[in-house]
This record gives sequence, C-alpha cells and structure tokens, in this order.
Amino acid sequence: MKPVTPFDSASSSLYFEEAHSADVVNARMAPNADARLRQVMTILVEHLHAAVKEIEPSHEEWLAAIRFLTETGQMCTDWRQEYILLSDILGVSMLVDAINHRRPSGATPNTILGPFYVANSPEYENGANICLDGKGEPLRVAGCVRDIEGRPIANAKLEVWQTNDDGFYDVQQKGIQPDSNLRGVLTSDAEGRYWFRSVKPRHYPIPSDGPVGRLLGAIGRHPNRAAHLHFIVTAPGYDSVITHIFTPDCPYRDADAVFGVKRELIAEFNKIDDPDAAERVGFSAPFWSVSWDFTLAASTQPRRAIP
Amino acid sequence: MKPVTPFDSASSSLYFEEAHSADVVNARMAPNADARLRQVMTILVEHLHAAVKEIEPSHEEWLAAIRFLTETGQMCTDWRQEYILLSDILGVSMLVDAINHRRPSGATPNTILGPFYVANSPEYENGANICLDGKGEPLRVAGCVRDIEGRPIANAKLEVWQTNDDGFYDVQQKGIQPDSNLRGVLTSDAEGRYWFRSVKPRHYPIPSDGPVGRLLGAIGRHPNRAAHLHFIVTAPGYDSVITHIFTPDCPYRDADAVFGVKRELIAEFNKIDDPDAAERVGFSAPFWSVSWDFTLAASTQPRRAIP
Repeated sequence: MKPVTPFDSASSSLYFEEAHSADVVNARMAPNADARLRQVMTILVEHLHAAVKEIEPSHEEWLAAIRFLTETGQMCTDWRQEYILLSDILGVSMLVDAINHRRPSGATPNTILGPFYVANSPEYENGANICLDGKGEPLRVAGCVRDIEGRPIANAKLEVWQTNDDGFYDVQQKGIQPDSNLRGVLTSDAEGRYWFRSVKPRHYPIPSDGPVGRLLGAIGRHPNRAAHLHFIVTAPGYDSVITHIFTPDCPYRDADAVFGVKRELIAEFNKIDDPDAAERVGFSAPFWSVSWDFTLAASTQPRRAIP
Repeated sequence: MKPVTPFDSASSSLYFEEAHSADVVNARMAPNADARLRQVMTILVEHLHAAVKEIEPSHEEWLAAIRFLTETGQMCTDWRQEYILLSDILGVSMLVDAINHRRPSGATPNTILGPFYVANSPEYENGANICLDGKGEPLRVAGCVRDIEGRPIANAKLEVWQTNDDGFYDVQQKGIQPDSNLRGVLTSDAEGRYWFRSVKPRHYPIPSDGPVGRLLGAIGRHPNRAAHLHFIVTAPGYDSVITHIFTPDCPYRDADAVFGVKRELIAEFNKIDDPDAAERVGFSAPFWSVSWDFTLAASTQPRRAIP
C-alpha cells in the first residue's frame, strides 16, 4: 500500500487544469477525513483520471459509460447483484480474493464464493449420496484434509455445493430439483478422511440478460463458468478455505467467465467401468471418481475494514 | 491515445494469477471485437487492477464499493442523474470537457453544461431584463463576441441561464419563480456587442441527499457550486462554447464542488452607486456591472463516438 502524501498546496492549483486534474480533485479532501478513505479515494481518482487521459473519450462515449453504470445499478434487486457480476467478469473479484488470501505455499488456494452458497445445508455421514434425484453421471469424491505439514485434520467441516448435470443449482430450480439437492456438509474422520457420492457437475452461464451480459457480448466473450464442485472447508485453528474442484474436460475450463479456474484446482476425474469397484462404493458401473485433498494453513488475523 | 497491442498468447497465462491479472482478463476479449471498445476496455481493466493492487481492499471494503455503485445507479431517475454527479465531483466531467475542447490560446474556455440548461428559451433584444420577478441585486452584463483575431462577430447567439439570488434556477422553483426566469437568448449586434440586465447569481448546492452527497460528506467536502452565469455562445463557422462567468466574491469561488471554476473565467463585478449611471441602464442605484467578452475559435471537426 502507498503512503498518503500530504497535499502540497504550494505546488497545486486551486482551479481545474487538465495537466494536474487528479491533484486538484484530491487536494479538496479535508485533511481530517478518515485516513483510509482518503488513501482509497486518492488512488481511485489518480487511476480514473489517468484512464480518462489515455482513453480520451468523446462526450458521447462518456455518456455511454454513465448510462452503462446507471443501468448496472438499476439491474440490481434483492436476488440479482449486477455490480458483483461486473466485478467478476473484469477479474476484480478474483483479484480481491487473491489479495486477501495470500497463503503459505502448499495450502489450498482460495476462490470466490459466488451467489449459490446456502448456509445450514444438510449434514451427511461420509459415504452419503448428496444427489437426491438420481439424475446425472455418478461421481465419487474422496480425499483428506491436512495441515501444511501433512498431518490429518479430524472433524473438519466440508461444505459442498454444485450444479446438476443440466448446469443448474437446486436454488435455481425450486420445484424441479429436490430442496438441498447436490449440497451438504461432511465431517472428516479421525484420519482427516472424507468421502461422498454425487454426480458430475456441468458448466453454466452467469446471468447474461443485463448490462454485464451485453458488455460480454460486445467484447466477444461467453458467459459460462467452467464445471466445478464448490467447497468451504473449516476447522478450528485454521484459515477457512473457499475453493473449487474443476473438471478437466469442461469446454470452458480454459475460459471461465469469472476467472475462477486456477491450474492447481483442475482435478483428475477417472471414469471407472468395473462392476466390483462400483458395488464397493454403492454405484453401478460406470462411475466417475475424483481424489482430492485439502491443505489448510494455520489461522491468521482478519484484515481491517473501512468503518 | 495508446495503440492497441495485440495479445501475446505465449507470454500470458490462461488462468488467473495475481501478478498478471489485468493481462489475463484483457486477453479474453475476442480479436474481432470493435477496436475502439477493445482499446477502452484494455485501459480501464489495466487501471482498475492497478488501483485494486495499490488499495488492497478487504472483502468488506470491496463490498462497500459494490454497494456504493449500486446505490448510485438506483438513485437515478428521469430527473436525477447521480452518476453524472459522481463524475462531476470527481473532476471527470471537467476532464472529459477539457479533452474535447482544446482550443487555440485566447479562445474562451469551455466548461460543463450542467443539468439546468433549457433549450428554446425566450429571445430578447439587447438591453432587456431577464429577471422577471424583480428580486435580487440588479446586474448589468455587457460585452462583445469576437474571433481569435479580435474581429467582432455579428449575429452570434448568446444563451444565458443562472440562479436567482436565493441560489435556485427557475426549473427548481416552478410556481415560485416565473417560467423562464433568469434565462434567455440574446443576439450580438453588427459590432459584436451584447448587453442585458439581470440579478447577481448566488452559489447553490448540487443534490446532496444521495450516495454522492454522502461521499462528499465522508471526505469533508461541501456540495456547493460557485455563483455564476452560464452561457452557450454560437455563431456559424465557429466552435460553440459552453462557458461560465464566475463572481469574484462567492465564498465557494476557490472550492467549486464540480471543479467548474477556471481562473480566466472569474470576472470583475463592480458595484455602481451612481443614480445617473443607473438611470442610463434602466436601474435604480446601486447596481452591479460586469463587462465580459467572448472569443470564439473557428470550427473544428466533431470527434467520433463509439457506435
């Protein structure tokens, strides 16, 4: 972070000048305003003015930007947050996430929460099937929760949620999918192990019928998220991790609309066509199998927020 | 303006990385997307990511920004444009105006139009009084419209609008002020001269009951515009100019909330306490007098806009 430099009134103009435009604006802030807010606004105004100077927008382009920002706000409702979508498709959400989750090497990387997480999902025993309607290609997921030194973490909570194989979450298909379909909470055993049954997830589009979707269209980008299972793994004394497991064969693996894919989160999904192996895990052959371990870093202090 | 550099796929990652985050996002745009839009988005994403990296926002600060942008959009109605206000108080409107009106030395500087301009205002003969309710301190305005070489421009149209001495435009006080109070269109005579009567304008606040007003409060800034007369001067063959004349004694002269004041637009207002002089211009003493000339540059081509 850059230190706040006090305004040097001798070197700045009181009045607007193109050459020093950001300084003139920033000099107007009261010296006793909140220091963090002054720092944030100073940086934003500097970059905003620098961008405008590089772009040299016409009046009509400026007005188009005003309209886009207005419509993005007006698209928001209690169940639709178009500005978060904009942040997502511009890579800002992933960047803020990365800045706030710089973990020791070896720890499972964090990713963004997204809009489909639901608190207080059903708790399951290991081995349970979280797919409640039997639709889709069966998938077994199993692995271990460990610390950075490789020691198993018992009683870790693993919250998982994912789409069905049509690319919809339960909350998007009330009355079509059973409630809480393809989501649940598992607990690691004494050796840190967890295992459950589900179906292979599918890619799906972010909402694209608003200003953000139109922007994506204008810059030739598709709105699809790469297929994944979404996890939050928590254990006392460790940093919680929000993370994804991505399928390796999704057509959008290398072009996730919100930049959620990290190379180290692409898993190996094996198709097993062995009736005995299938019977041992409670499926009929063929089924998909993925092994995935989570590595948690020891707890760190939360960062401060603007009051 | 910066040239668009083609994406070098060999040097960029497909997947999100904090260090190259803007490049990863910009590389996703289709090569055949509109070249100007690609250029604009490339610059915006670069500066947005650079600002986020300098600020290092917490998750809560990021969410506060999302909420602010959302509320700013939701404050907008057919008669209230909160994003233009935001652009105004951040100096962006003045910057875009400056970029689009780089005039030869000596030409009257442009300023922003603002929300109170009304087309098709009443036409007046020189000498008319545009103050229809007789309230306020009388003001005589007179001067000449010239070209860069100092030659008078006859038949130039001068559209003027201003607040009354309570700081309100007619359109803000329907039923209180007469319609079209303190606005009108004058025409320069054969020697380029114009003259009219009015009242001394007063400073006034921009709308401050929304997110932009709250931001101004948080950074210790007031919402007031410095007192001014607003003009559009047009003549065939010349660039139209939108400009202000600022009073020298306004308490907000050096701290206009939207950075509209330019040093060269602060006029000398003389208080004349001479009954004979007053009678000659149709006032009773004392009255204010300002002399102000406009200098128009020859026409230039309009800039292109994003389609």
